[in-house]
Amino acid sequence: MFQANRIRGVLAPVLTPFKSDLSPDPQRFIAHCRWLVSQNCGLAVFGTNSEANSLSSEERLTLLDQLVAAGVEPSKMMPGTGCCSIGETVKLTSHAVKHGCAGVLMLPPFYYKEVTEEGVYRYFSEVVQRVGDRRLKIYLYHIPAVAIVGITPRLVERLLKAYAGSIAGMKDSSGDWNNTKTFLDAFAARAGGPVSGFDVFV
Amino acid sequence: MFQANRIRGVLAPVLTPFKSDLSPDPQRFIAHCRWLVSQNCGLAVFGTNSEANSLSSEERLTLLDQLVAAGVEPSKMMPGTGCCSIGETVKLTSHAVKHGCAGVLMLPPFYYKEVTEEGVYRYFSEVVQRVGDRRLKIYLYHIPAVAIVGITPRLVERLLKAYAGSIAGMKDSSGDWNNTKTFLDAFAARAGGPVSGFDVFV
Repeated sequence: MFQANRIRGVLAPVLTPFKSDLSPDPQRFIAHCRWLVSQNCGLAVFGTNSEANSLSSEERLTLLDQLVAAGVEPSKMMPGTGCCSIGETVKLTSHAVKHGCAGVLMLPPFYYKEVTEEGVYRYFSEVVQRVGDRRLKIYLYHIPAVAIVGITPRLVERLLKAYAGSIAGMKDSSGDWNNTKTFLDAFAARAGGPVSGFDVFV
Repeated sequence: MFQANRIRGVLAPVLTPFKSDLSPDPQRFIAHCRWLVSQNCGLAVFGTNSEANSLSSEERLTLLDQLVAAGVEPSKMMPGTGCCSIGETVKLTSHAVKHGCAGVLMLPPFYYKEVTEEGVYRYFSEVVQRVGDRRLKIYLYHIPAVAIVGITPRLVERLLKAYAGSIAGMKDSSGDWNNTKTFLDAFAARAGGPVSGFDVFV
């Protein structure tokens, strides 16, 4: 069944511990992730609460390598990989897919504002095509208070039409239940239809 | 005199030419920069109009290397180097300083919103200290419609007090003359004072 190996349950927005020199602390990060997994939590690493966008791409790649090398299970992980640059997003996403992560949480490009829906569609479209891996599962990250650039129902509809296998769901951090319900009603309930298997996290 | 070797005149926001595979085109970039210099323009490369934030750090480093290698004069350049990550900002800024660029145009970190002035101050403060080069000349980049996070008079005052030699000016892209005048009156006119040499570009 299509959804059988989808990640389920609670995913913790994983804090990133930093040393006093502002570099991330891999040992405390690994210990924290192990504890979360022991509590039956999935790991939303490199999200907004993680200060991921204050890290360099290299730091994010290295931390994920260290986490996997420490034996934390990638099938429990949904790292954030969305950057302003398509190239960097593809690099972080391919790396997560190769590690066997359950999925990736992907911001739209967030520097330029008032981008057209077509522009945002092309960004995600390029990323899917460039990653070019059937294991790819993207969870679109809607957090308008921070990213300003958001995920719209029409965007999801277009992406599901083109890349149903790779667009696995979304995280709606709008804090607006009406918005969440709009996406649930439009996409999550279409079991058996061509777009079955779109999960909405909050 | 303090301001003698400061960059002066018109700086063009330099467009970045892209190939159809979305990678930057160094040959057309170099040709365009040469032409701009021949028209007596300085080069504000890697700004907002340049789509710099859609490029990876590596692409920006490589393009600047290629531009300098082609014989375009670094003393005419003010590359944009402000990223969300202090580490990446330091890397791009140090690279520009080592090439002998006239200055760098530096965005505040722009992912997280409603950051305190203290937080933005510490970002610039860390960058100045980590670059640790007396040749460093930062032009603070105020473009609130896009970055949302802005540059305030009190921030400039604090930075000038701590790092007068490194904080060389600002670019005010607010499009609001009253805002520009506020900064001109407060900082640019203090010739002979301890904060002489703060230039305001629009």
